[in-house]
Amino acid sequence: MVAALSAQSPAPRALAGFSDSGAAAQLAREKTFDASLQRGNLQQWLKRLSAKPHHLGSPAGKEVAEFVAARFQSWGYQVEIETFYPLFPTPKLRKLEMTSPDKFVAKLEEPVLEEDSTSGVRQDQLPVYNAYSVDGNVTGQLVYVNYGLPGDYDALAERGIDVKGKIVIARYGNSWRGIKPKVAAEHGAIGCLIYSDPHEDGYFVGDAYPKGGFRSASGAQRGSVLDMPLYPGDPLTPGIGATKDAPRLTKEKAESITKIPVLPISYEDAMPLLKALGGPVAPRGFRGALPLTYHLGPGPATVHLQLEFDWKLTPAYDVIARLPGGELGDEWVIRGNHHDGWVFGASDPLSGLVPMMEEARAVGELAKAGWKPKRSIIYTVWDGEEPMLLGSTEWAETHAAELRKHAVAYVNSDDNGRGFVELAGSHTLEHFINEAAGDVNDPEKNVSAQARRRAIGTVMGRKEKGDLALGALGSGSDFTPFLQHLGIATLSIGFGGEDASGGVYHSIYDSYDHFVKFDDPDFQYAVALAQLGGRATMRLAEADTLPVRFDGFVRAVKGYVDELTKLADKMRADTAESNQLLADHVRELVSDPHDRYVAPAPKDPVPFLSFAPLQNAIAELERSSTAFNEKEKALRGPLPLESRKALDQILMNTERVLLREEGLPRRPWFRHQIYAPGFYTGYGVKTIPGVREAIEERRWSEAEQQIPIAAAVLKAFAGQIDAATKVLGAAK
Amino acid sequence: MVAALSAQSPAPRALAGFSDSGAAAQLAREKTFDASLQRGNLQQWLKRLSAKPHHLGSPAGKEVAEFVAARFQSWGYQVEIETFYPLFPTPKLRKLEMTSPDKFVAKLEEPVLEEDSTSGVRQDQLPVYNAYSVDGNVTGQLVYVNYGLPGDYDALAERGIDVKGKIVIARYGNSWRGIKPKVAAEHGAIGCLIYSDPHEDGYFVGDAYPKGGFRSASGAQRGSVLDMPLYPGDPLTPGIGATKDAPRLTKEKAESITKIPVLPISYEDAMPLLKALGGPVAPRGFRGALPLTYHLGPGPATVHLQLEFDWKLTPAYDVIARLPGGELGDEWVIRGNHHDGWVFGASDPLSGLVPMMEEARAVGELAKAGWKPKRSIIYTVWDGEEPMLLGSTEWAETHAAELRKHAVAYVNSDDNGRGFVELAGSHTLEHFINEAAGDVNDPEKNVSAQARRRAIGTVMGRKEKGDLALGALGSGSDFTPFLQHLGIATLSIGFGGEDASGGVYHSIYDSYDHFVKFDDPDFQYAVALAQLGGRATMRLAEADTLPVRFDGFVRAVKGYVDELTKLADKMRADTAESNQLLADHVRELVSDPHDRYVAPAPKDPVPFLSFAPLQNAIAELERSSTAFNEKEKALRGPLPLESRKALDQILMNTERVLLREEGLPRRPWFRHQIYAPGFYTGYGVKTIPGVREAIEERRWSEAEQQIPIAAAVLKAFAGQIDAATKVLGAAK
Repeated sequence: MVAALSAQSPAPRALAGFSDSGAAAQLAREKTFDASLQRGNLQQWLKRLSAKPHHLGSPAGKEVAEFVAARFQSWGYQVEIETFYPLFPTPKLRKLEMTSPDKFVAKLEEPVLEEDSTSGVRQDQLPVYNAYSVDGNVTGQLVYVNYGLPGDYDALAERGIDVKGKIVIARYGNSWRGIKPKVAAEHGAIGCLIYSDPHEDGYFVGDAYPKGGFRSASGAQRGSVLDMPLYPGDPLTPGIGATKDAPRLTKEKAESITKIPVLPISYEDAMPLLKALGGPVAPRGFRGALPLTYHLGPGPATVHLQLEFDWKLTPAYDVIARLPGGELGDEWVIRGNHHDGWVFGASDPLSGLVPMMEEARAVGELAKAGWKPKRSIIYTVWDGEEPMLLGSTEWAETHAAELRKHAVAYVNSDDNGRGFVELAGSHTLEHFINEAAGDVNDPEKNVSAQARRRAIGTVMGRKEKGDLALGALGSGSDFTPFLQHLGIATLSIGFGGEDASGGVYHSIYDSYDHFVKFDDPDFQYAVALAQLGGRATMRLAEADTLPVRFDGFVRAVKGYVDELTKLADKMRADTAESNQLLADHVRELVSDPHDRYVAPAPKDPVPFLSFAPLQNAIAELERSSTAFNEKEKALRGPLPLESRKALDQILMNTERVLLREEGLPRRPWFRHQIYAPGFYTGYGVKTIPGVREAIEERRWSEAEQQIPIAAAVLKAFAGQIDAATKVLGAAK
Repeated sequence: MVAALSAQSPAPRALAGFSDSGAAAQLAREKTFDASLQRGNLQQWLKRLSAKPHHLGSPAGKEVAEFVAARFQSWGYQVEIETFYPLFPTPKLRKLEMTSPDKFVAKLEEPVLEEDSTSGVRQDQLPVYNAYSVDGNVTGQLVYVNYGLPGDYDALAERGIDVKGKIVIARYGNSWRGIKPKVAAEHGAIGCLIYSDPHEDGYFVGDAYPKGGFRSASGAQRGSVLDMPLYPGDPLTPGIGATKDAPRLTKEKAESITKIPVLPISYEDAMPLLKALGGPVAPRGFRGALPLTYHLGPGPATVHLQLEFDWKLTPAYDVIARLPGGELGDEWVIRGNHHDGWVFGASDPLSGLVPMMEEARAVGELAKAGWKPKRSIIYTVWDGEEPMLLGSTEWAETHAAELRKHAVAYVNSDDNGRGFVELAGSHTLEHFINEAAGDVNDPEKNVSAQARRRAIGTVMGRKEKGDLALGALGSGSDFTPFLQHLGIATLSIGFGGEDASGGVYHSIYDSYDHFVKFDDPDFQYAVALAQLGGRATMRLAEADTLPVRFDGFVRAVKGYVDELTKLADKMRADTAESNQLLADHVRELVSDPHDRYVAPAPKDPVPFLSFAPLQNAIAELERSSTAFNEKEKALRGPLPLESRKALDQILMNTERVLLREEGLPRRPWFRHQIYAPGFYTGYGVKTIPGVREAIEERRWSEAEQQIPIAAAVLKAFAGQIDAATKVLGAAK
């Protein structure tokens, strides 16, 4: 009986967007695809491309673009290198010294390590700096501001400490780095240092490089501090492509450049400064893992910070490789990863790039063997991601009109490592990418990548049945212009969590030697990423209709609205309570008279907000989504091509209608009303940002204005679902 | 009108246990008492008594006892020095060295500091050691076990690490120190080191001594590791007084002595050992504030630990000073503080002792001026508290029969510092001590000590109206034999939270110099303690009837029962969940194959326990307590002496009936069924310990047995309330 049962052919495997026969053919195609993936390519390309510093504007950066372009060409793609000319500052002078109470000059250098062969390749190495810091020459007393976030300054103010006219030192972590100088400047600081505390990034986490993979005493983190949450891309050409002749702002008018000079340093350089701070002992949450008592200052440590940069327009080379589609060739599936690093960039970005190359090679082989995907596939390899998504943003801005018309999805990867699959993006693609992750084997365990991800979720207390919830996207990689400026459904994919790539993030030690020792030694997860990226790209390109589903989106948005109502309620209760404590002088009673305590001003009470428009929109979404599902389930047989074209247009539009042309308050470049990088978190997402940030920042009337705006896009989304349902109903 | 109103005499101030006129007289007496307190005495005594090492058995220890006795004599007390002869080991040989991979010999010494004048008084200094470690000479690989608690060994086992035949190194903190070698021995370790990690005790907390008050690199914490939760006091005479001729166990039969050698070390001595550990990186909760990556081992660090002690019977000098009472002179109010230190002991215990002396001096003056308290007052000054409550335990055991008959309450203090009043003890005295704390001024803020305590509770999220809840007592000072062995209602009082006494706890730097710089520079809180202790003692002695109330007790016990039911429910759910994770191999899926993971055995499921007897007992307590309150409220006029005597006997008995002669399971010395030190927490209390520990340690049938036992003492308590109500009803 058992034998008889298993001898029966299995029920046909369903695949979102595919007919049964289409699914079977696609699954067979993926077998061929998997079989052609070669680890040797991954290893060789990673080693080759990480041999020299290949940041934006470097000789090797151009070579990398040309090498990649040549490969794509050889695999049968229509390739072009598209060049943009963004402003990109590189250091001319970096000087940091303590002038009192002791003399100390910061080294600002990552030394050569015998165990790390490329660390000795000094030519063209960009030194440690923060791109888009203004030039500056400042001297002032130092104040330690913890992570440098608004709440940290509140804690300082309660201790009577003001940073006006001072230089602040913040530790990396708990927010994107660019927030730190922005908030420091808002509070009147004249300079900003950011150091890597070993508590977040060093020996507290694991053994330091080269013994282990984590950041060493002199390791430091380069990185952009452009005010990305305002707008990413070239600071001189917001909203338009930085082509050769584009109209440009002057540097002085570019609002995304910092207001004060800022420099990242290692903990070895930070220690003497922190040790020389007096003033109160830092509150518990401010203390890191250095062997010292953290004090807040101000002073007596006084530092002199001098920074000068070479501000020049720098060519960015984007590689664009097309594989034209068939019957739905006007619909574009875009897959991308950047190619520029801060220095050698073995992990960031090459560990993501080389799997995408191998994926593209295998796709190219399938095409050479006769497969023509229904939709067009465009592989994009971006330059200048590190300075702030320059290549992707300028390309997306340049081609905005076409993209809005043709792009059905953008699938991004970036650095990739050993561990768990990481899935984030547009919730309309939640089911789709879950299906793909369920079909990729985790190379360390005999289960799917999805199953292993589910397991760690379970351990962490999330019990997810069915599809795993996608993370919402803030920023931090090239998906931002596609999702948040153009409204193209987006996915971000990768693996990680067991590697130590974070320990050399944006350092010269992000090298081949580090990668094969501490990240993905056997390139197993590089293969897994190629498999996942390949499935996502091919399925998006080949599906009969776009594999968009609405359940995940509705669930996610309903959750966000629920969070917003709870946020307002909690702030109302907390405000009432903290105002009551102030009125009762409770903290004055508790405070130690040996320390200084300055009572904050009472906060304005939190009004009740009218969330009804959002709640009604959710109800409408639920009705529309249910109707669509029922109609789809009832569908028998394939749709005719014209219906599929019409349906795809509508499905593509669901993400588009989540934009609003005016953008978010005070940052028109960001148009998406559901996902945005936080104005005070950076990479960290704010969902329904217009409403959420208005509440968080206590702009009550703005919150009242933003609620119907967010509700309107959700209603428009529901309208698109209804239109799609209509197409399904019309077909039969 | 306002003037007229305020000109009226105020309503008479109520005071628990007092008639209106008695209360007025007592409040007037306290004004005189307060006026006679002299800061100069506090400062001079503290300086004098901390000039030399005065541990148990030291020449200066005897001098301290004699000095104190002479003072009490001069203040009009009937004084005797009562001597006991407990076993007390002192070091003959202490050797700790790393034999591989590197050679390192631990210094085991706290150096002389110029800024700390007594640190140079080397004669008679007890070196750094743990009293009641067995002798031993062991060599083994080292394993880092975090705080050394049972859960830490579970975490090690999951990583495939066994301590059998190994030497463990644990950090101080998160439990009383004696738990660490006990649990290590239970797991088969052959030796135990305990070091002071700066995360709990050093630069992470605040500036190290002498710059600040916190523990320095070579500072180490002496302390007893006697298995106090089994029984405190002389290990050779459990349950009976260690008089000269008492029958004694041999040392080998004394179960409270450790099973393995144990030594405390500074972080300076610990660093080379921790640095030489290999094996997995320690899990996050294991990591301290040293500048290294914490590894678990075992080895390669191999250490040799050799300890030899001089085991001798050592005279302990208790000072007992009596002030006989009047009409209720058979009822004894006992007030106590110890006089022995580990070395100079300025904070521990002198900061508590000298205020008690000044309190006694002022009480003596009142007596000389003609006041004769209704009840007798006994001031007790204990020797040998540090080795483990030797003086108090032996005295309480010796005088058990009298104490059970006469003692109405014991009020303990120990080290005292700057900050917030700390109130703990029998909940029948909750209202009483709240009243007293409400009448003592906080010296830093213009409010009562109670009000300031309430304020910090509010900040920490406890919103308490009316009386502040008393903490329940575990152990850690001389109250233990009175409360938990004899069932005498007990209070523990003191101030702290703003001082840095913890930074020199049990170190040679617990000195006068440290105290006047970092603890209570102006002796303000020493005066406050004298005021609070004086009020507690005088009011207990002078009240018409004992100021016992039941509301606080009923509320507390109801809370404990509620905790127990929730504990069982939570363990049941957690067990089911963790067993399910095991069955599903979830952690195996999540685990990093580069690390070792050993799945634990599934746990036995948690049965439903019959809590009804406890719940019914609570209901009975509530009824009885309400009836008592009503009757008391209805009372008009004072009770006759005989009724008051009868009532006091019953009220005294309420705490006695909470004992059970058989004691707690496996530790018969501990008889109290509501409060006990935790078998695996030490000083930390376990309330309703018979039931709670049975549940926590998964002994389900014992839990079922202990529930009715605990219920029975609560019912007996309710019976005493009813008896008290009857006395009130009979009077009229």
